Amino acid sequence: MTNPTAAMLVIGDEILSGRTRDANMYHLANELTGRGIKLREARVVSDDHDAIVAAVRALSGSADHVFTSGGIGPTHDDITADAVADAFGAAIGIRDDARAILTEHYQRTGLELNDARLRMARIPDGAVLINNPVSAAPGFTLANVHVMAGVPAIFQAMLASVLPSLTGGDPLLSQMIDVNRGEGEIATPLKALAAQFPDLSFGSYPYQRDGAYGTQLVVRGTDAGQIGTAIIALTKLVKSS
Amino acid sequence: MTNPTAAMLVIGDEILSGRTRDANMYHLANELTGRGIKLREARVVSDDHDAIVAAVRALSGSADHVFTSGGIGPTHDDITADAVADAFGAAIGIRDDARAILTEHYQRTGLELNDARLRMARIPDGAVLINNPVSAAPGFTLANVHVMAGVPAIFQAMLASVLPSLTGGDPLLSQMIDVNRGEGEIATPLKALAAQFPDLSFGSYPYQRDGAYGTQLVVRGTDAGQIGTAIIALTKLVKSS
Repeated sequence: MTNPTAAMLVIGDEILSGRTRDANMYHLANELTGRGIKLREARVVSDDHDAIVAAVRALSGSADHVFTSGGIGPTHDDITADAVADAFGAAIGIRDDARAILTEHYQRTGLELNDARLRMARIPDGAVLINNPVSAAPGFTLANVHVMAGVPAIFQAMLASVLPSLTGGDPLLSQMIDVNRGEGEIATPLKALAAQFPDLSFGSYPYQRDGAYGTQLVVRGTDAGQIGTAIIALTKLVKSS
Repeated sequence: MTNPTAAMLVIGDEILSGRTRDANMYHLANELTGRGIKLREARVVSDDHDAIVAAVRALSGSADHVFTSGGIGPTHDDITADAVADAFGAAIGIRDDARAILTEHYQRTGLELNDARLRMARIPDGAVLINNPVSAAPGFTLANVHVMAGVPAIFQAMLASVLPSLTGGDPLLSQMIDVNRGEGEIATPLKALAAQFPDLSFGSYPYQRDGAYGTQLVVRGTDAGQIGTAIIALTKLVKSS
């Protein structure tokens, strides 16, 4: 069997101007190599509609999978979703499933879901959402292109939920709980719990919101029952530790 | 005056496999930005003749300058020089000026100039040598393509000797303010402000640092006065929104 191939597209003026050092290429390269997927090419383009469209078309035609990083936030220079839709001639607009995720997230966090943030619910028709356990706003897969955030913690979390579906395995499921404390406080019991569930993976993503530290704990696996059991154990553990 | 444009081509399986983290793109991006040269695109390709030829042709046609990194050492997988020659239909062989540099270097260091090392004197006809103060083996410039080593110390030294010969545009200036809130909260007023300054570019970069979320707002352009005016307006806007 021939190994599947991949290409990466990093989108962002901040990388090309040298303001930011890209961290996602190195992470993706290692994750793919570990799974027998060959990364054949990577490109970095600026926040330019035509440049993104051209690169998406070229790479999606030459590799089995394309991973993009950057340009899916709420600001005017976040144009990746529209460009990827254009590359495939797909319609794009605010989609109900993505809007529901954002509505739930912003209600829970007490922040306003304003027009700018609502832009993050713009998803091409026919795309499958990619779960974002860190900050809710989803990525998406359209044809063979996986569109993900540029912030490394979010890119990594999205990639973790996409990768298992690429190698022909069972779909990866996840559940999340939000804990009102720093991850340093729960790291040790979390590690012990993870050891009890060798078939599941446990991710921890720290954040600070309105001056308070918190951590999102994500449990991933292919067995919904096992994930449920782990989430119950995790909830007990967090309350008692 | 229009600023010159540049593209980068990183060559090496070790980057795409995740064995090595590329360090040259970030360095080049900063050096070019400081000289008013706009890096428009970067690509990473594997040690594959056809892939290098295709990328060199594409990038040399779309940018004023192309900078390559990697693949000019003594081993069998160092095929960049031949591929660049091929891209331009130039003949290539061991050139006397390059051989003289290597002969002097290896005599001085007491090492043997064997056949493998002599491969580093393969330079396309018509190319101008790039000085390598670190390890002697030269890079070269053919047409608008500057071919340099992948080892960061050597890449940087070669770049330092190439850059002064390039015609710079107006230096690209930037100013930044750091805002203690998520970018979603300021996206709408930021877009309105950006529309008032068509000659400037506005970037917004969310980050997480020590558990705290924030956003860096960067204003870029070539007119320091205009940038200053924009930064004052931006500061007011952030305080009032």
